[in-house]
Amino acid sequence: MRAPFMTIWPGSMSKLFFEKLENLDTGYTRNLKEVLSQLNYNAQGLVPAIAQQYDTGEVLMQAWMNAEAISRTLDSGKVCYWSRSRKKFWTKGEESGHTQTLKALQIDCDGDSLLLQVDQNGPACHTNRPSCFYLMVKEDKVVISSDN
Amino acid sequence: MRAPFMTIWPGSMSKLFFEKLENLDTGYTRNLKEVLSQLNYNAQGLVPAIAQQYDTGEVLMQAWMNAEAISRTLDSGKVCYWSRSRKKFWTKGEESGHTQTLKALQIDCDGDSLLLQVDQNGPACHTNRPSCFYLMVKEDKVVISSDN
Repeated sequence: MRAPFMTIWPGSMSKLFFEKLENLDTGYTRNLKEVLSQLNYNAQGLVPAIAQQYDTGEVLMQAWMNAEAISRTLDSGKVCYWSRSRKKFWTKGEESGHTQTLKALQIDCDGDSLLLQVDQNGPACHTNRPSCFYLMVKEDKVVISSDN
Repeated sequence: MRAPFMTIWPGSMSKLFFEKLENLDTGYTRNLKEVLSQLNYNAQGLVPAIAQQYDTGEVLMQAWMNAEAISRTLDSGKVCYWSRSRKKFWTKGEESGHTQTLKALQIDCDGDSLLLQVDQNGPACHTNRPSCFYLMVKEDKVVISSDN
């Protein structure tokens, strides 16, 4: 499943590639390596990746992946992101033990966003909250919506 | 709720601001305008925004918002993104009628990602599929997982 020498195409090629998939019926397949090579990575070679708890539907966090992080995730079954602040690969839970086991990987219509269905071990957030999205807008305030 | 003359702070200030919120208990509040001004916008002034169907938990799409798109969304109750390709505000459904009514807006721990709980009218995807994330990885293939 790994594609270490994958060619990454420019954004305009990526757009055309995903447009051609739009009208295909359910069950139609394409080669994984080909699709991954066509993802619409940003100038830093990254795409946003959303982690959702596969059985409850809770959105846990959003981080970033490059091609190698996607390959590592698919190879190991444990979610690996690219940390923009630390500028290195970051296998979720490598320090905290709060790993994410990959259940499914979904790609969006224009190939510039990933949805990871995961089984989260422990809290997803570094604050020890279940989800990173704990700041809730309520009228003219923002409320902390879960304890750490 | 609108903040048209909002100051946007540099990333390092934003990081400190959100770190100070981490250890606060459930129910603690901050002023909305202040929090929005401190979001960790990227170099284009954007943050990723994830739209989730509020009652089923389905993740529908991921797009981008700037400060003004957030203000428009909160003011109108209809989700407004910034279209990077068309370089203009994009009130979801303005052409298709497939609007998103905002049910809740959540901000993540480091202020660089938004989660929108929405009520989607009709399909979310421009391909007429319910969700944009219809490309599903299955072993060494990618499978179209819903009809358009």
